[in-house]
Amino acid sequence: MELSAVLMRLLWLSAALAASSSSRRPRSAEAPQSSSPFGPVWPLPRSIRISPDRLQLAPRRFQIVHGAGSSAGPQCSLLQDAFRRYYEYLFGYSKHQKHEEKSLANTELAALQIIITSEEPDCDKYPDISSDEEYNLSIGEPVAVLKAEKVWGALRGLETFSQLVFEDDYGTFFINASDITDFPRFAHRGILIDTARHFLPLKSILTTLDAMAFNKFNVLHWHIVDDQSFPYQSITFPELSAQGSYSYNHIYTPTDVRLVIEYARLRGIRVLPEFDTPGHTQSWGKGQKDILTPCYNGEHPTGSYGPINPILNATYEFMAKFFKEVGTVFPDEYIHLGGDEVDFSCWKSNPAVKEFVRKQGVWYSYTKLESYYIDKMLDVVSSLNKKSIVWQEVFDNGAELSSDSVVEVWMGNSYEEELRKVTKEGLPAILAAPWYLDYISYGQDWMKYYKVEPLSFSGCETQKKLVLGGEACLWGEYVDATNLIPRLWPRASAVGERLWSSKNVTDLEDAYSRLSEHRCRMLRRGIAAQPLNVGFCRHEVRNP
Amino acid sequence: MELSAVLMRLLWLSAALAASSSSRRPRSAEAPQSSSPFGPVWPLPRSIRISPDRLQLAPRRFQIVHGAGSSAGPQCSLLQDAFRRYYEYLFGYSKHQKHEEKSLANTELAALQIIITSEEPDCDKYPDISSDEEYNLSIGEPVAVLKAEKVWGALRGLETFSQLVFEDDYGTFFINASDITDFPRFAHRGILIDTARHFLPLKSILTTLDAMAFNKFNVLHWHIVDDQSFPYQSITFPELSAQGSYSYNHIYTPTDVRLVIEYARLRGIRVLPEFDTPGHTQSWGKGQKDILTPCYNGEHPTGSYGPINPILNATYEFMAKFFKEVGTVFPDEYIHLGGDEVDFSCWKSNPAVKEFVRKQGVWYSYTKLESYYIDKMLDVVSSLNKKSIVWQEVFDNGAELSSDSVVEVWMGNSYEEELRKVTKEGLPAILAAPWYLDYISYGQDWMKYYKVEPLSFSGCETQKKLVLGGEACLWGEYVDATNLIPRLWPRASAVGERLWSSKNVTDLEDAYSRLSEHRCRMLRRGIAAQPLNVGFCRHEVRNP
Repeated sequence: MELSAVLMRLLWLSAALAASSSSRRPRSAEAPQSSSPFGPVWPLPRSIRISPDRLQLAPRRFQIVHGAGSSAGPQCSLLQDAFRRYYEYLFGYSKHQKHEEKSLANTELAALQIIITSEEPDCDKYPDISSDEEYNLSIGEPVAVLKAEKVWGALRGLETFSQLVFEDDYGTFFINASDITDFPRFAHRGILIDTARHFLPLKSILTTLDAMAFNKFNVLHWHIVDDQSFPYQSITFPELSAQGSYSYNHIYTPTDVRLVIEYARLRGIRVLPEFDTPGHTQSWGKGQKDILTPCYNGEHPTGSYGPINPILNATYEFMAKFFKEVGTVFPDEYIHLGGDEVDFSCWKSNPAVKEFVRKQGVWYSYTKLESYYIDKMLDVVSSLNKKSIVWQEVFDNGAELSSDSVVEVWMGNSYEEELRKVTKEGLPAILAAPWYLDYISYGQDWMKYYKVEPLSFSGCETQKKLVLGGEACLWGEYVDATNLIPRLWPRASAVGERLWSSKNVTDLEDAYSRLSEHRCRMLRRGIAAQPLNVGFCRHEVRNP
Repeated sequence: MELSAVLMRLLWLSAALAASSSSRRPRSAEAPQSSSPFGPVWPLPRSIRISPDRLQLAPRRFQIVHGAGSSAGPQCSLLQDAFRRYYEYLFGYSKHQKHEEKSLANTELAALQIIITSEEPDCDKYPDISSDEEYNLSIGEPVAVLKAEKVWGALRGLETFSQLVFEDDYGTFFINASDITDFPRFAHRGILIDTARHFLPLKSILTTLDAMAFNKFNVLHWHIVDDQSFPYQSITFPELSAQGSYSYNHIYTPTDVRLVIEYARLRGIRVLPEFDTPGHTQSWGKGQKDILTPCYNGEHPTGSYGPINPILNATYEFMAKFFKEVGTVFPDEYIHLGGDEVDFSCWKSNPAVKEFVRKQGVWYSYTKLESYYIDKMLDVVSSLNKKSIVWQEVFDNGAELSSDSVVEVWMGNSYEEELRKVTKEGLPAILAAPWYLDYISYGQDWMKYYKVEPLSFSGCETQKKLVLGGEACLWGEYVDATNLIPRLWPRASAVGERLWSSKNVTDLEDAYSRLSEHRCRMLRRGIAAQPLNVGFCRHEVRNP
């Protein structure tokens, strides 16, 4: 299905030559549009053929419509919303000509027709790990046709279509006749945000979802609570946020959460909630009595608290109720249980915990105690007919993971070895380790993220297939609404292409050219993505 | 004049105790207001005495006015503008009570009276290196009195006053009775912005000036053009920006420049223009024929160009005219001539330049050729009755610097040794080397900037006095309007306090506490300063 790069360049050359003689569009210095044979498409589709024939789009006539034979129609509000959104991305940032648009005979693209081929288009469903995102885009006179089994593929195809349209100096819009077949390499392509170290206003989260859609990400991993604060407003246990949030201004109400989930759904993005336990839970203790382990100095409580108290029945009763609510509020089939960085010192200091461990026998350990706790959490999630995702320590410490539990690999030192081990056990894995975007450094670090090959570990094909994808993680210690967007974009875009495009898409020069244009496109669409290097965009950031 | 830290803490303790019993204001987690004995003042004044007596401010009655005996009155638009601005900072972000404000008898502060004591208040002047910024602030019932020789001190005092006012949970404003005497440690406290690697919209520059005033910076070092682009629109040579800018959207018109200078003046900030030559000038060559040196490969021109061509009379005629304009457009008594990082390879390849060097004799060198060029530029600036600032290479290479030329030290490897050498020669110096804020790293790097002691080099008192101050430099390779503000603030604030406050103000814990609150205050005032660490602000950033 895929054309070779050499053939692509030949095809493009003719297109570029034909275009250069008639177009006087000023190029951005970051990336002349023609410097990549693929145009400024990001991430690169699996197969793309671009012809030299240029078609004009007239904003006042051009339509995005349901095609004949599509199983989706005007009642599919997900698509209706997407049509309006992409019309705006295509033409919205430009001043529309008020005069009659000249029709250039025989070269006009009149419409983009969307055809959903499956009998069940999924208009009112939530995306999940197995959602079909494949699409086929055929752009030619008089109409372009975007075919997909499901609405999810249509969303991805709309994004690609919108990236192929360009505007010349006179405000005229064009697209080259093209054929594209596209589908993702990995099913799980996530962005982790952390709303506990700093609260992120709703608007920042929605803007992040916009940018994710522009980069074909499909999972918002919402690390919603942590030691520092508990902004999630629980219906069952409202004291958790009443006491554990930074303030009453720093809370996500049930309405906020529903809004995020629906905004994400409309963009084909899953919202994966993480309620990290038994460590990283200091804020839980403020609104829930006895949920944390009291730490001791000898025989006396110090007044400090450690991880969740794993030896009380009350703990598990509370957790069962709490996660039941989480399972209802968040429609995703996965719940992230955390399980990272559990400090045993407080457990070891507490007489009752010590006694509990001692009673289990000499073979027992605090690592086993942690697994004991996690196993119970895994059971809770199972009982909700949901699946669990856990950080890698849970696997490393030998918890009893069912074969549909997913292990997220985050430790940077030897993630390839960890991937090998996890998949060797037949467990699915998600890779986060090389993509901790909170670590910043001078220069073009996007290249480092781009060069990662998630399947470079040693293992058989069956093992490789167990890698569901990866996540770019922006932990919040030094990030809040002031710097979230420029710190995340376009650095996360590098991860986006790695997880979507073919394994052999590794040309850094070509990527730089496309990504520079893609970054300028994000600016036009209201995403304050920071620059890759020196240069400019034709349309700079709005409201700097 | 200065109270000892121990005494301060004692004084504060009583104040804090008195306040804590009656105030239920929620504290920001980043810095409970009471955790510094000085309150959230940044930079710390030279002498501050805070009493436990709290005075109320009623927004609808409180006034900032000219005091009796002041040489400035309502005709002083600089102060009128500042009064309005600081009234807004004091009360603007809060919802004013519409109901009658309760008067708490005997505890209300009715007004802040500004008294300019010099016969010439400088209302219509530009600030300069010797502008007097000292002020005395006496806050007590029924009015506070801010005394300063000149308007510049009044501006600094207004900022300090505004930082001492706080709002309780019920929306009531208070200030503690206090006495402050304050003046800067260094006269030159600059922020370098680079509008050539990326264009910065006017709004970003004005916002930067706002933030500078909040941190008592007084010099905007405007590195306005460089290799990559020439956004400065010259009246005399309009082709320079017509050809050398990124696009017609990426130009500073004469009106823009005037606006920046006036906006800065109203905040007591000088605008120091830098037109860097003979290197860093690729963009000049696009709009000015023959100004750059043609590079050669053997006997043939390569089509590339090097630094300014130093052997043509036309070069010097052009430069004389150009800098005459610069001297007129920018009122500051200093012009920054650049002079850094000159690459000799192109000069060495050019037959005419080679011949020029050969003719001077065996003792001549390309370093001397560079000094020959710079000496002529120094003469041009002198002839305009202005003074020059140059980067350190100009000094290192032995140009003939007059005793009022300033050397800016930027090389990181041994800046103390360089400061010693420069001042040993009797030349004034500005320190930039340890404060290159474009270099980023994970974590709280503001501490590194804070710990720098600019006078740590070995030298006599006379030498130390020659250090005029320093600059925080945010070079623009990876910075544009998307990330300028959060990357600059509050990191540059650390430099701001180092350059303003006493040498012995080095307590990191106290600084963290005050800076965290100061950062929250910047957010309230519309500066998207990034977080120092985990936590929150009561009022988060506007329009994230």
